[in-house]
Amino acid sequence: MILEIADIHIHPGQNAAFEAAIAKGANEVIAHAKGCKGFKVNRSIESPERYVLQVFWETLEDHTVGFRGSAAFPAWRAVVGPFFAEPPLVEHFDLVLESA
Amino acid sequence: MILEIADIHIHPGQNAAFEAAIAKGANEVIAHAKGCKGFKVNRSIESPERYVLQVFWETLEDHTVGFRGSAAFPAWRAVVGPFFAEPPLVEHFDLVLESA
Repeated sequence: MILEIADIHIHPGQNAAFEAAIAKGANEVIAHAKGCKGFKVNRSIESPERYVLQVFWETLEDHTVGFRGSAAFPAWRAVVGPFFAEPPLVEHFDLVLESA
Repeated sequence: MILEIADIHIHPGQNAAFEAAIAKGANEVIAHAKGCKGFKVNRSIESPERYVLQVFWETLEDHTVGFRGSAAFPAWRAVVGPFFAEPPLVEHFDLVLESA
């Protein structure tokens, strides 16, 4: 299992609209992608225009090759992209440690 | 429930030692802090010196006042701090959305 973390900064004053958009994009697009095992979205208390999207993928390639190479990627970006104040920082992670 | 996300960059070549240290610090210090509901640590595939620590807290103040104001904070920093290449970026997050 691979964790994708996307650090997202949106334009100010669009929180409600962005949250509706990312819910739509995640539920209607990401959730149906091959290898997608789940997702969550958190909003920063200190920086309310900052969101962290986490997506769990079966393999790295399910995201980098499968998802990004499919028609789902432009569909996703069409829904959430207009809110981005800058390109999101996206990296993939291995789990090192977890509490019981 | 509040999610703390700490973005950590360590000095190169110290991954194994850092992972042992953060396991010790998380299990022996953070896990016992009042209000701590769990934690996880992930390592970036693209940037192997980058780690993301997530700690779940019952309330924001359990971390910012309780933990940071207690003797546990310097104990934790003594274990992991020497590995940090720069001060970690730490923010707190509300949950916006989660897959079923």
